[in-house]
Amino acid sequence: MSAPTTPEAVVDLLGLVAYGELLAFDRMAADARLAPDLRRRAALSEMAAAEIGNYRRLSDWLTALGATPDDVMAPYVEPLQAYHDSTEPKDWLEAVTKAYVGDAITDDFLGEIADRLDEPYRRLVRDVLHESRYADFAAAEIRAAIETDPRVANRLSMWARRLVGEALSQAGRVAAADRGALTALIARDGTDVQATFRRLTAKHTARMAAVGLNN
Amino acid sequence: MSAPTTPEAVVDLLGLVAYGELLAFDRMAADARLAPDLRRRAALSEMAAAEIGNYRRLSDWLTALGATPDDVMAPYVEPLQAYHDSTEPKDWLEAVTKAYVGDAITDDFLGEIADRLDEPYRRLVRDVLHESRYADFAAAEIRAAIETDPRVANRLSMWARRLVGEALSQAGRVAAADRGALTALIARDGTDVQATFRRLTAKHTARMAAVGLNN
Repeated sequence: MSAPTTPEAVVDLLGLVAYGELLAFDRMAADARLAPDLRRRAALSEMAAAEIGNYRRLSDWLTALGATPDDVMAPYVEPLQAYHDSTEPKDWLEAVTKAYVGDAITDDFLGEIADRLDEPYRRLVRDVLHESRYADFAAAEIRAAIETDPRVANRLSMWARRLVGEALSQAGRVAAADRGALTALIARDGTDVQATFRRLTAKHTARMAAVGLNN
Repeated sequence: MSAPTTPEAVVDLLGLVAYGELLAFDRMAADARLAPDLRRRAALSEMAAAEIGNYRRLSDWLTALGATPDDVMAPYVEPLQAYHDSTEPKDWLEAVTKAYVGDAITDDFLGEIADRLDEPYRRLVRDVLHESRYADFAAAEIRAAIETDPRVANRLSMWARRLVGEALSQAGRVAAADRGALTALIARDGTDVQATFRRLTAKHTARMAAVGLNN
């Protein structure tokens, strides 16, 4: 039996994810300018807009829990900003690969956490996971590019590995910035952190393979 | 009696507005970085996201009418880009004033056009008008800033006049880029263009006064 989820941990988690969504919106909206045509530009813009929808839901929950979203997000501003600064896409394919890899890892991570939370928090976190149609769009773009020029696979595989490396480095910075409740939640009594890590890695590897990229 | 709305004119109009939404999304998302705090940044980001929702509806309609959105939007890319390039906000208050003034003028213009269209086009165009809660947010920001420092009113009034001037200049460029059907629609038989212009101006003046700005 595990102890009930503390509201502090939930507030910190929601703050982290909320700021992640706000920043992802900002960067994805800017990346949309890299699109080769208006149809694709609109598609990435819509992916960005979906992040803001999720931000709003998290922010409303934070307020309902008696927290001030700005205060709760503040500790995570610097580490998340650092991630995006170090992974600025140079072209359209890097932008869609970042959207494809990054959103999915975030979702897997949230899914893992959600399953350890008590209700109503479990359902809340499950609710903000991304719609798969956006991932489908990004996956189709990557596959089509590799079909046209197989050498693209190597370049984008390297790029994806860099994204994951920077994300892990960012995770360390987030843990350092955390007030304690969030870290305690992730390493909650009975949680096998290594098993969690293996599951996240396996899902990432499968996702890479699904679009023709290698780990 | 007027002749029925031609589908060509509707397609051109929707193409113009759709590209306007796509570009407004892009610029407003970038402008959100000027926000003094995360709450305000999120609010402008949400206004931007609403533009993309409208873009999607217009784009779906264009496709349903047998048009290719990219082709229909193409003639308007340059003039609309020129408008935004010449009205890049320097700070947060210029950004919210641009959102407040610009979206409202677009909506008034669309409302005028909608009333001259046959169904189902009339309802379609009416449907993409913005939700007033976004304008309310921008208006509250402007009012609060003027209350704190009355000198702000002068600066923002000048900025708003520049926005309108650039928008009119852009409208001339749009008319020049148009293939003819759109211009014919706006100056449709029996339409008093001068009366339309007076109505749009009166609404703009009232809106400026409502937040403490002068024309």
